[in-house]
Amino acid sequence: MCELLGMSANVPTDICFSFSGLMQRGGRTGPHCDGWGVAFYEGRGVRCFHDPAPCHSSAIARLIESYPIKSENVICHIRQANVGRVSLANTHPFTRELWGQYWSFAHNGQLEGFVAQPGPFQAVGDTDSEALFCDLLNRLRSQFSQLPEQAALMQAITRACTDYASQGVCNLLLSNGDWLFTLCTSKLAWITRRAPFGAAQLSDLELVVDFGEHTTPNDVVTVIATEPLTSNEQWTLYQQGEWRLWHGGETLASGQLELV
Amino acid sequence: MCELLGMSANVPTDICFSFSGLMQRGGRTGPHCDGWGVAFYEGRGVRCFHDPAPCHSSAIARLIESYPIKSENVICHIRQANVGRVSLANTHPFTRELWGQYWSFAHNGQLEGFVAQPGPFQAVGDTDSEALFCDLLNRLRSQFSQLPEQAALMQAITRACTDYASQGVCNLLLSNGDWLFTLCTSKLAWITRRAPFGAAQLSDLELVVDFGEHTTPNDVVTVIATEPLTSNEQWTLYQQGEWRLWHGGETLASGQLELV
Repeated sequence: MCELLGMSANVPTDICFSFSGLMQRGGRTGPHCDGWGVAFYEGRGVRCFHDPAPCHSSAIARLIESYPIKSENVICHIRQANVGRVSLANTHPFTRELWGQYWSFAHNGQLEGFVAQPGPFQAVGDTDSEALFCDLLNRLRSQFSQLPEQAALMQAITRACTDYASQGVCNLLLSNGDWLFTLCTSKLAWITRRAPFGAAQLSDLELVVDFGEHTTPNDVVTVIATEPLTSNEQWTLYQQGEWRLWHGGETLASGQLELV
Repeated sequence: MCELLGMSANVPTDICFSFSGLMQRGGRTGPHCDGWGVAFYEGRGVRCFHDPAPCHSSAIARLIESYPIKSENVICHIRQANVGRVSLANTHPFTRELWGQYWSFAHNGQLEGFVAQPGPFQAVGDTDSEALFCDLLNRLRSQFSQLPEQAALMQAITRACTDYASQGVCNLLLSNGDWLFTLCTSKLAWITRRAPFGAAQLSDLELVVDFGEHTTPNDVVTVIATEPLTSNEQWTLYQQGEWRLWHGGETLASGQLELV
């Protein structure tokens, strides 16, 4: 299994604090040694960092931890390989362009023997996760020639996800830079921080940050992670089958897949 | 105008030395202040770094300069914006997946009023360069349902490039991770380093490296750049309209566009 970390905020916000906690699980407090990656959206652009080396000892991870890249939508993943060997091509998040937007995707779970329906989006590596992502994009593109209304898009995405979830564990983060779609079929948690901001203590590292010193009263920042990253805050656990669409730190839409 | 840097090698090789010279032109010895980016291929995977900040003062650029990422195919670009504002989405190299391979592209030049033919690959930003890249991929995909033989592919690429070159300046680097295609319509130079390796002195910085200390006798490394990066070596200038396909540091194929 892998660890997911996502962020949705209403102002460009750095993820250094949460990332510092997560990267400990990449080989120190957790077994996720098989690479890591992160996608930061800035406007329509996306900035990705990928490293097949363990996160806790990666020079690039140290840069991300210390250099505040500010973003409204972030997807991060640390990997413990099951399907697909350890390589750059198998390192999440995966990114493709669809309808003139960059779509990024990270997955925690396993869909044994997953077969993607053929289409123009093809996997480059050999993970089930990337095959699933390409399958999803092929389905969307065959249904819509351009970005549809949000309700129609969510209906199409959740219908596909119902199908995937019937084939295995499928916790996932998906973004087009505008919103962050999240799905839990086994384990995922979220927390929204807003005024009055307080101090947070990481679970995986002796590190406390007082968000009051780094925010303005209007900031809303939601962090989504496989397991709560802090020890002194109340995280909400997703239900099995629950999906949430985040935008600007708030839930835009949510629902429950009918899992069989 | 922008500056291009490419590398083709027969063993995974870092580009720290050449990059150190190039990044000086990103705001210090050159005016290319409007961002920079680099794509390193490793196997089928590609690792990209993009920064809309000036290269010579970028924390990410300092990482690339000091952290030896080894690759057989590299594309790097520093930008002086003309078409399209300074933003992450407008920062080269651009990457798309085609036929299960990551294709990366960087361009130096300007094609005023360039109109891409419509197709599934769409620009995310608003540069003529990205529009050209998408147009090229759309043409290739409409001609071939999978990666064709190299001769047929080069014929299709050079035919499209003849068309682009008739509309403006079009120096470009293009890679699918297997080879590096290069085209010069105004300015580009190359050098191949092989045994016996000697010392090289950067033009833009007081820095000398003795490649003999970092190589084995079988290494072949070609560097392609808008202008020669070293002051004590003999670079070969491309002719106007000349294209070269590099693989493992050697020219696999080359030719001359018929420019009108």
